[in-house]
Amino acid sequence: MDAFVVGSVTMLEVLAVFVSAVSGGLAAVRKRFDAFGVLVLAWVAGLGGGVLRDLLIGDTPPVGVSSWRLVVAALAAGVLIFFFHPGLERMRRTVLVLDAAAMALFVLQGTTKALGLGSGVLTAVVVGVLTAVGGGILRDVLTGEVPLVFADRQLYAVPALVGAGLVAALWRLELLAPWNAVLVVVLVFAFRMLSVARGWAVPPAGPGWTARWGRG
Amino acid sequence: MDAFVVGSVTMLEVLAVFVSAVSGGLAAVRKRFDAFGVLVLAWVAGLGGGVLRDLLIGDTPPVGVSSWRLVVAALAAGVLIFFFHPGLERMRRTVLVLDAAAMALFVLQGTTKALGLGSGVLTAVVVGVLTAVGGGILRDVLTGEVPLVFADRQLYAVPALVGAGLVAALWRLELLAPWNAVLVVVLVFAFRMLSVARGWAVPPAGPGWTARWGRG
Amino acid sequence: MDAFVVGSVTMLEVLAVFVSAVSGGLAAVRKRFDAFGVLVLAWVAGLGGGVLRDLLIGDTPPVGVSSWRLVVAALAAGVLIFFFHPGLERMRRTVLVLDAAAMALFVLQGTTKALGLGSGVLTAVVVGVLTAVGGGILRDVLTGEVPLVFADRQLYAVPALVGAGLVAALWRLELLAPWNAVLVVVLVFAFRMLSVARGWAVPPAGPGWTARWGRG
Repeated sequence: MDAFVVGSVTMLEVLAVFVSAVSGGLAAVRKRFDAFGVLVLAWVAGLGGGVLRDLLIGDTPPVGVSSWRLVVAALAAGVLIFFFHPGLERMRRTVLVLDAAAMALFVLQGTTKALGLGSGVLTAVVVGVLTAVGGGILRDVLTGEVPLVFADRQLYAVPALVGAGLVAALWRLELLAPWNAVLVVVLVFAFRMLSVARGWAVPPAGPGWTARWGRG
Repeated sequence: MDAFVVGSVTMLEVLAVFVSAVSGGLAAVRKRFDAFGVLVLAWVAGLGGGVLRDLLIGDTPPVGVSSWRLVVAALAAGVLIFFFHPGLERMRRTVLVLDAAAMALFVLQGTTKALGLGSGVLTAVVVGVLTAVGGGILRDVLTGEVPLVFADRQLYAVPALVGAGLVAALWRLELLAPWNAVLVVVLVFAFRMLSVARGWAVPPAGPGWTARWGRG
Repeated sequence: MDAFVVGSVTMLEVLAVFVSAVSGGLAAVRKRFDAFGVLVLAWVAGLGGGVLRDLLIGDTPPVGVSSWRLVVAALAAGVLIFFFHPGLERMRRTVLVLDAAAMALFVLQGTTKALGLGSGVLTAVVVGVLTAVGGGILRDVLTGEVPLVFADRQLYAVPALVGAGLVAALWRLELLAPWNAVLVVVLVFAFRMLSVARGWAVPPAGPGWTARWGRG
């Protein structure tokens, strides 16, 4: 379990950062940012969640500014988008699937890192969810948009929360092992994908909110 | 004085977080955020100021992500608003009064916590004010609004600043005691309430700014 | 080199903070913020980059909330703008030149501070650039604008990045000395000024981006 616990920079993590960074680069292009803006937004979307996580658990400097592998992964996504974004815009479905996988990985990675550094269960769950959704929130704020994750009614944060809760519970019971950690990642990914396919929705607040539960 | 100094999680602090969280939940409902957005905004408005405080004074993880009592208080406000917000919107006056009381408490709590952890007077005053106004600033940024506290001309930050300055001065003179700490809270609250009742205003910048001092 | 390394608060740094704070105060006035908003925005623009730097390298409390000299410098700029902003708006050219000098100083100061506290080269470069551009980004977010530095196509972050890279390289080669540190500052300043004079531009992303390289 040590490999998970210390939050080691694995190949999977590099890929997850790359995939998440794509959404930032695309948002920057849509806003007609310049090359610097595209690179920064890719970095923010790919590594912003991890930076918030590390600041909250006091692990400075955050890997988002100290790990060559992760920073290069995020900037590579930015460069790619800068030159080839029309093609990437058309791969919207692929990006959606890969992004769900990256989100699931971030949840595991963020939650176990916090637990490994001595955080309590509550902190670990909050930080695990934030690792997954924080980059997107910062991306939206920096492009002048209201964060999508707060308002689009999709189940994105909910699978993340379920995953972080499961990981923290397994840890607390001293049952967390590579095999069930992988299982949680698969579960979070499947939950997210299923909610997209079925159109499951988070209810909005409103007088008639009960009538709007779900889209079916 | 120890109870104040270490920033212990008291019942009053829990109530102050709950009351402050209400403004975040209501802002989220107005923006038609979904259930997740309402909960996060309640958390941000109730605990965001304290998170900024703890990050600045290096006390990680911040109580906003590690204290069950405080997190539950903020989320409870979010749940309440999600279901019953039309009623809460009508209680605007009550919310205003409770919010002023919460602000006064946050100023004392933030300033003494910083001083207790060894911060200098300047840091403690800045951090005390930020504990009181930081949650509202983050709430406004995350809902796509310009922070109200910068532009609404109300005396909100000014009473906070006066209170933080008084607490820091008393501390420096080694005169801070429970009785005068309570007095400062009452004073900050009274100052805020009086400014609302009388319509006292912070002057805006502008060529004819002197003519606009006050609303009378 | 010690004087640079520990990031000591020098007269030059105080001046750089003052100059940078001017842009925040002016942005607040344009948004018709009140006196409190003008002061906070001056503080954010002058010291926000340094606060982000210190949070990322774990040096809490940040000098932006603990150094009297720096806080007074930023607030003095705010007060000045509150009363005399029409005159300052007319000094746009002077402000542009002084701001470029401040940016160059921040790059040196931020990069060497990070290196001096044990950060690696990557962290130091990121943090050096952030010290220079972070205040402006926070200023724009808090006034409801998309950060100028991401979208205005000007060479602002690029000279900063070159300067931070040079400082880090010299440090790594154990060649950093007062005389070449000053040279880097002059170089960054000259690069920025030249890019303004010649209209050099960062390319925006877009289908026909190659055609838009430069403005000539």
